[in-house]
Amino acid sequence: MKTMDESKLREIFGEENIKTDPSDLYAFGSDASVHHAMPWAVVRPDNTRQVQQLMAYANEALIPVIPRGGGSGMCGQTVPIRGGIVLDMKHMNRILEINLPDVYCRVEPGVVDDDLNLALKPHGMFYPPTPASSRIATIGGEIANNASGVRSVKYGATRDAVLGMKVVLPNGDLVTLGAHTRVEASGYQLHKLMVGSEGTLGIVVEATLNFVPIPEYRCMGIANFDHLAHAGAAVGSIMASGAIPSMLELVDSVAIKAVNKTMNLGLKEVAASLIFEADGMVREAVDYEINKMKEICKKHQGSDITTSYDPKERARIFMGRKKLFPALSKYDDSLSSTSLADDMAVPYSRMADMAGKIHEVAKKNNIIMTAYGHCGSGCMHTKILMDTKQPEQWASARKAITEIYEFVRSVNGTTSAEHGIGLSKAASFKVEKADSLRLLQTIKQALDPNNILNPGKLMQAPDDWVTATGLRYAVNN
Amino acid sequence: MKTMDESKLREIFGEENIKTDPSDLYAFGSDASVHHAMPWAVVRPDNTRQVQQLMAYANEALIPVIPRGGGSGMCGQTVPIRGGIVLDMKHMNRILEINLPDVYCRVEPGVVDDDLNLALKPHGMFYPPTPASSRIATIGGEIANNASGVRSVKYGATRDAVLGMKVVLPNGDLVTLGAHTRVEASGYQLHKLMVGSEGTLGIVVEATLNFVPIPEYRCMGIANFDHLAHAGAAVGSIMASGAIPSMLELVDSVAIKAVNKTMNLGLKEVAASLIFEADGMVREAVDYEINKMKEICKKHQGSDITTSYDPKERARIFMGRKKLFPALSKYDDSLSSTSLADDMAVPYSRMADMAGKIHEVAKKNNIIMTAYGHCGSGCMHTKILMDTKQPEQWASARKAITEIYEFVRSVNGTTSAEHGIGLSKAASFKVEKADSLRLLQTIKQALDPNNILNPGKLMQAPDDWVTATGLRYAVNN
Repeated sequence: MKTMDESKLREIFGEENIKTDPSDLYAFGSDASVHHAMPWAVVRPDNTRQVQQLMAYANEALIPVIPRGGGSGMCGQTVPIRGGIVLDMKHMNRILEINLPDVYCRVEPGVVDDDLNLALKPHGMFYPPTPASSRIATIGGEIANNASGVRSVKYGATRDAVLGMKVVLPNGDLVTLGAHTRVEASGYQLHKLMVGSEGTLGIVVEATLNFVPIPEYRCMGIANFDHLAHAGAAVGSIMASGAIPSMLELVDSVAIKAVNKTMNLGLKEVAASLIFEADGMVREAVDYEINKMKEICKKHQGSDITTSYDPKERARIFMGRKKLFPALSKYDDSLSSTSLADDMAVPYSRMADMAGKIHEVAKKNNIIMTAYGHCGSGCMHTKILMDTKQPEQWASARKAITEIYEFVRSVNGTTSAEHGIGLSKAASFKVEKADSLRLLQTIKQALDPNNILNPGKLMQAPDDWVTATGLRYAVNN
Repeated sequence: MKTMDESKLREIFGEENIKTDPSDLYAFGSDASVHHAMPWAVVRPDNTRQVQQLMAYANEALIPVIPRGGGSGMCGQTVPIRGGIVLDMKHMNRILEINLPDVYCRVEPGVVDDDLNLALKPHGMFYPPTPASSRIATIGGEIANNASGVRSVKYGATRDAVLGMKVVLPNGDLVTLGAHTRVEASGYQLHKLMVGSEGTLGIVVEATLNFVPIPEYRCMGIANFDHLAHAGAAVGSIMASGAIPSMLELVDSVAIKAVNKTMNLGLKEVAASLIFEADGMVREAVDYEINKMKEICKKHQGSDITTSYDPKERARIFMGRKKLFPALSKYDDSLSSTSLADDMAVPYSRMADMAGKIHEVAKKNNIIMTAYGHCGSGCMHTKILMDTKQPEQWASARKAITEIYEFVRSVNGTTSAEHGIGLSKAASFKVEKADSLRLLQTIKQALDPNNILNPGKLMQAPDDWVTATGLRYAVNN
C-alpha cells in the first residue's frame, strides 16, 4: 500500500473539503455501530467528476475508499477497518428531478430521506422504503444497505423502489445502470446488485427512484397479548390471510417496560403488543383490512384492541414503538443500548419462536434484550442493553449473538432484514451464505480487483466482531 | 473446443433423456423468435445433480450449454448460436412446497406458469408476473427473462416476486441465493442479478417465489379514442394521478383492424382503445379506481366507455387484446407476424409518441406494424407483419427496427420491457448500455470464465440480427 498524497486530495477537492484533523477523523471513525477505526482523511465531493478523480487516484495508489451517507449504519458499514479515505457524500444532496407524469425522481446520494419526502409531499406522493432513521439517513446509504422500515410490508424495500442509477466504479469509470421505466428486461440489471452491496462494488452518484401516492386514509390499531406466542400466531395468521397491512409491528414486554420506565407512557405491561395499520384511498377498503386484522387478533386472544383514523390517536398508539429506540438508550444509566444481531428476518410462522428465543438467550447470558420489529416483513429487531465497560458483558453478548443467529438460520431466516452486514454480522452472514461466499468474492474481485472500495466488510470481515476493530466504548481492562 | 462425448451424456442422463436426431435437433434450434441454429444434442435433466454433472463436463470440455424452458422466448435467447447442448428443463417441473403461513412457494424451473397458478388457486392465491405465454412459459424461463405481463403495472415483474433460488454455476457448483423472507439485506443479493440474465450466468434449479391473494373484485373498462395522442395522454394522466390500475392496455388501429379481419369481432375501428382494470377485496375501492380512470379517459376525449365486473363482459372487453397475437398471425396468408423490436419500454409521457413513431416508421419502410401493450408499465409491444420470403422485407425490417430503437433511446426508454434481449435486440441493447457493456462482460467473465453458458447472447451477440443465425423462414434468393 502506498501512502496517501494529501496534495492530490487538495487538487481534487480543494482545501475546504478535506479533513485530516484527528478530532474530525475520530468522528468519522464510527457510525451507529459498536465499532471504531480511524480513517486517514475525510473528503466531501460536490460532484461526480470529483468522485471519479478520487477513485482513479485511490485505485492507482491502492488506498481504501469508504463511501458514507448519514453515518446511521448499525453494523460498521462505514467504519474504515483498513484505514483510507472516507468519502462523505452529504454535499451531493440535490434533488435533480421530480417527474410526475413519468412517476420517478432523480436524486443525488446525499439527499436525506425526510428531505425527499418533504419535496414529494406537495405532489401527494411519498417515497416508501423510509427507515426509522429517515431524519439523517441518506438515499445513498439506504441503497447501500437495501434499507426499509415500518411500511416495507406493503411497499417493499429500497431495492424495490430503485429504477436505475449512475455509479462510479472502483477504477473511476462512470456507468449508467437500470432504466427510467417501471419494467425492464434489458440484460443484467446491475442496479439491483448495487443495492445492498454496502459500498463495496461502486459509488452511487445518482439514483432514479419510484414514488407512490400518499393514501387518503390511514387507520392504526393496537392489540395486547398475554403470551408472546399468541401475538406471533396472530402475525402469521394475518399474513397468511391475504390481508394487506401497511404496517405490522410487534413490541415485547421488555420494550414496553423500557418505554414506560423512561417515558412514563403508562402502557399496559403485557407480554406483547401488535400495532397494525392499513391505508388506502377508500375508507371502506381500509376498514376491511383493519377489521380483518382486528378479528385475527381477537381470535388469538388479543385484548384491549383499539383502532383509529385520527392522526393524534394514531400517534398515541404508535408512541410506544416510536420512542422505543431512545427509551432503550435511557433505560439504565449504567447500560448502553447496542445494535448487535439487531434485524434478523425469519419466516412469519417463526416470529413468536424468534422472540421467545431472544428472551431465553438474554436470560441465559445475563444481558437484557428486547424483541420488536416489522413483523409483517418478517423482520425482528433487537437491542442488547449491557454495561459496555465490563469485558465479560462483551463476551456474553458475543455468546448470545452466536446462539441467536444459529436459531435464525435453523428456521430458514436470514442474518439481516434491513440494516446490512458490515462488520457486526459478518460471522453469521458467512455461515448463512457459506455455499455462495466464493461467488460473492468472485464478483467483488471482478469489479474491484485492487480491493480498495470499503475493504474488509461482508465476506471479507473478521469473524470476531468484538475484536475486529476498536470499540466505540471504553472497556475496563 | 473439444468434441462432444455422447457416452458422457448417456452416463449422466440415460439414453431416454438425450436427443440427437436431426429432426429433434431442428425443433430445439428455434424458439418463438426469427432465429434458427442447430444444437449438437438436447438433454432432459430430472434433478439438480444431473445439471451439476453436465456443467462440470461441459465446462471441462468447453461445450456450450443452453438452458431452455418452454421455448416461448421471442428474441432467440435459447437458439444455440454456437452449437452445443440444449438443456431442456421441462422435466424438472415439481412444485416442491406451497407454504401458506410463510407466503412463499418453492418450485423447480420447469413448472409451467399456468400450472403454478392452478395449484395456488384453491388457496385463494396467485402468482402475478404471468406473461401472455403462461400456458407454455416455465418459471425458469420467466426468471431468465424477467418476464411480466398485463398485471405488472400493479404487481411487478418476475424479479419482484423472486425471494431466492438455487443455481448451478457454469463450473457445476450449486449455490443458494436470496432468502425465504420478504425483506433481506444480507449482502449481495445475487438472485436479483440472475433474474434477467438469460441463462448466461447460471442455471436456476429451484426458485422461492412470493404469491398474493386473488382479489375478490375485478372491474374492467374500455375507452375508444379518435387520436392516438389522446389515448397516450390518458395513459400518462392515469399514471400521474396516483391511480392503481391492475391492468392498463393500449391497442392501436392496426391491431383493431387485424382482430376484426380475422376474428370478426366487429370492434369499432378507432385510432386506439384503452383497456383498464382495477382489482381489490372491497368493491368501493375498485369503483374508486375505475371511476378515476374513466374520468381521465373522458377528459382526454375517450368515447364509448363501458366498464363491467361481470366475468363474461370482462372477457368480451378483453377479447380484442387477447386475440391480437393469433389475429396478427392470420392477418394475411402471405405475411408472417414476427417478434422484432417487440417490447420496448418508454416513460409514460412518451407512450403516444412511441406508438406514432411505430406507425411512421412502418409506413416509411413498407411493412405493417402494430402498437399495443402494457402501457401502465411503460411497455409497448409491436409486431412486424412481413413477407418473410422477400429479402428486401428483411432489409426493411432491419431499417425500421433501427429507427424505432433510436427513438426509444432518445426518449429515455429501454430496449426490452419484458421479453429480454437474446439475439434480435442485441444491437440496440449494446448502444443503450454502451457505458456499462464492459462491466456486464466483466461479470460474465467472472462467473463463466470459459464462456460456455448460453454464449453469444446479450453483449456477446452479433450486431446484425438478420445474419446472426439462420432464419426460421425460407427466404428467396
